[in-house]
Amino acid sequence: MGSSFKSKTTREGATWNLQVREPFRFASGGTIPRVNIAYETWGTLNGDKSNAVLILTGLSPDAHAASSELNPRDGWWEPMIGPGRPFDTDHQFVICINSLGSCKGTTGPGSINPNTGKQYRLSFPDLRIQDIASSAQMVLQSLEIEQLRALIGPSMGGMSCFALMKQVPDITRHFLAISTAARAEPYAIAIRSLQREMIVRDPNWQDGDYTNKRWPETGMRLARKLGMISYRSEPEWRERFGREVQNRFNQRLFGMHFEVESYLENAAKKFIRNFDPCCYLYLSRAMDWYDISEGFENMPAAFKDIQLDSARVIGVETDALWPAHQQKEICQQFSGKGIDCHLQMLPSIQGHDSFMVDYDRFCPAVAEFMRPLI
Amino acid sequence: MGSSFKSKTTREGATWNLQVREPFRFASGGTIPRVNIAYETWGTLNGDKSNAVLILTGLSPDAHAASSELNPRDGWWEPMIGPGRPFDTDHQFVICINSLGSCKGTTGPGSINPNTGKQYRLSFPDLRIQDIASSAQMVLQSLEIEQLRALIGPSMGGMSCFALMKQVPDITRHFLAISTAARAEPYAIAIRSLQREMIVRDPNWQDGDYTNKRWPETGMRLARKLGMISYRSEPEWRERFGREVQNRFNQRLFGMHFEVESYLENAAKKFIRNFDPCCYLYLSRAMDWYDISEGFENMPAAFKDIQLDSARVIGVETDALWPAHQQKEICQQFSGKGIDCHLQMLPSIQGHDSFMVDYDRFCPAVAEFMRPLI
Repeated sequence: MGSSFKSKTTREGATWNLQVREPFRFASGGTIPRVNIAYETWGTLNGDKSNAVLILTGLSPDAHAASSELNPRDGWWEPMIGPGRPFDTDHQFVICINSLGSCKGTTGPGSINPNTGKQYRLSFPDLRIQDIASSAQMVLQSLEIEQLRALIGPSMGGMSCFALMKQVPDITRHFLAISTAARAEPYAIAIRSLQREMIVRDPNWQDGDYTNKRWPETGMRLARKLGMISYRSEPEWRERFGREVQNRFNQRLFGMHFEVESYLENAAKKFIRNFDPCCYLYLSRAMDWYDISEGFENMPAAFKDIQLDSARVIGVETDALWPAHQQKEICQQFSGKGIDCHLQMLPSIQGHDSFMVDYDRFCPAVAEFMRPLI
Repeated sequence: MGSSFKSKTTREGATWNLQVREPFRFASGGTIPRVNIAYETWGTLNGDKSNAVLILTGLSPDAHAASSELNPRDGWWEPMIGPGRPFDTDHQFVICINSLGSCKGTTGPGSINPNTGKQYRLSFPDLRIQDIASSAQMVLQSLEIEQLRALIGPSMGGMSCFALMKQVPDITRHFLAISTAARAEPYAIAIRSLQREMIVRDPNWQDGDYTNKRWPETGMRLARKLGMISYRSEPEWRERFGREVQNRFNQRLFGMHFEVESYLENAAKKFIRNFDPCCYLYLSRAMDWYDISEGFENMPAAFKDIQLDSARVIGVETDALWPAHQQKEICQQFSGKGIDCHLQMLPSIQGHDSFMVDYDRFCPAVAEFMRPLI
């Protein structure tokens, strides 16, 4: 094998950059002159390249899923990756890719268009989950990995995995879906639609021509707060905050009287200015558009060609955004075509975010699936 | 009995206006020179004034709960009130009051301050649920009703009922709580807090000095959309909209591609400009602040003095905003002090709004409680 496209791979600290030196064609038909795909790896690829594990991420994480010598900062999935950890780098070669359309090293609407010298912003072609999968495929081709040992998709990453399995039906032997979905449903679409509207109605949005000085901070703040509300859960907050009051910013009617209000404010502060609004919009909409069964008669027809030795679906009871019935649907489709698939609904109270927070439950659950694959 | 305050009651179509001609003192300590309390009634008050049923409302409804000769327009609870209906006007005298702080006839932050000739806006005193209850008490006093046959509180109205029962422990013989809570919890506070932030961060908010021309329409639109997301439910939208597409306003990335998006837009359009932003903020915050157990050692202590022959709590499984455990809590408190109380959790899929939508389930449930009280 080998890559069927002109490329060069460079390294910047822990980050690998696959620089593709030919046009990238989007599923929507648009084209950009070239793309960079940022990824990180942990562990060592074995001689027959059969021990690779690929993680595709949710909306906001970068490729830095775990620390390493070259980047000792904790990654977004730190307790998951390392020697003896669920993704065991003593045995497996773990890859995590920053999604196409994002702003963490991989090309996205915030990147410079080489033809104009300016950021793409809204001139970036419509992004589909399929494009994220295509870019992941390029990384695997450049590494000459023909088949993965396991493919892992939490949240939006699960959608990207589905798209990748549709593009290359035997791309992996095992698949782990975590709090994800095979298609977007209206409740999640409604929340994301409102988040996007918050951003584009910010006067500083300026039809995408925001600057560092006039930046849609209010829109991003509101969107992130709604994000947090949809990512966590009612029982968690009841237990964690109750009706606790804090008075640091207590401005009578509209200030932050309750703990939960300052929690949201702090969460928003950490996010805004660390994520490009335009990239956020593109990735958010890509999720809405995704439906594995699009163009097929029904779900079973869409799952028909996917080849797997086994699959596992892990979901969380308190996840309102990627709810239980969507986890069941995935497992039913795999089981229905004879693939060994097990559904595990965890009683975590942290909602959708549980897979990045409730490691007491998630580490054993992921390890149980991954350990036999060593 | 009789009212212990100077007042005059006038009629405007179907609406009664109790004009209180002395200062109204708020629980927070503030005072305004006078209040008007708008209410409607259906049926006839009997000779010993023992057949009165009082409905206190959620955040946005007005006093027009049902049509009548003087106002034939359908009310917000039309199928509930009338001859032979759950609130049977052949036998009962039904009262519905527009909450203090609202903008539908009763005095609120949008009303004219007689001392300045201008709207109160943010000079309106901090509003507590207790103030809504005090204003309801004034209506009952003016009607010389010493004890209600039944007190009914859906949503925020339930909180107002609790406050009224705390102020006058024998105010009613029977109490019907619908999708409400005895105190606000952090998930609902978070949603309301974000709605308020959407409004006050709208540049047209202007610290409360908005005008008809420069009105915080964007903030109100976003707040209403988040309201709809929190009032309805994931299963309802899945069934109702699925991934249906409509193309009327399809503006590529950020337009309304999916049915659920135009549904939200239409819902927002109906609301904005029909509700005063300042009133919205005051009522929203009043709910956050409400906790029946405030100042008491615990919940049982707070419920101790309430006197009732019976109570019923009706809730909805899919209501995330006023969730099942809060319905259970209310029932447990009543049962714990020996009051005959029954909890009925309905399998409606329309979330919090079910009580105004799923009449097939709610009419029989309410009738079952109300019928024996005739």
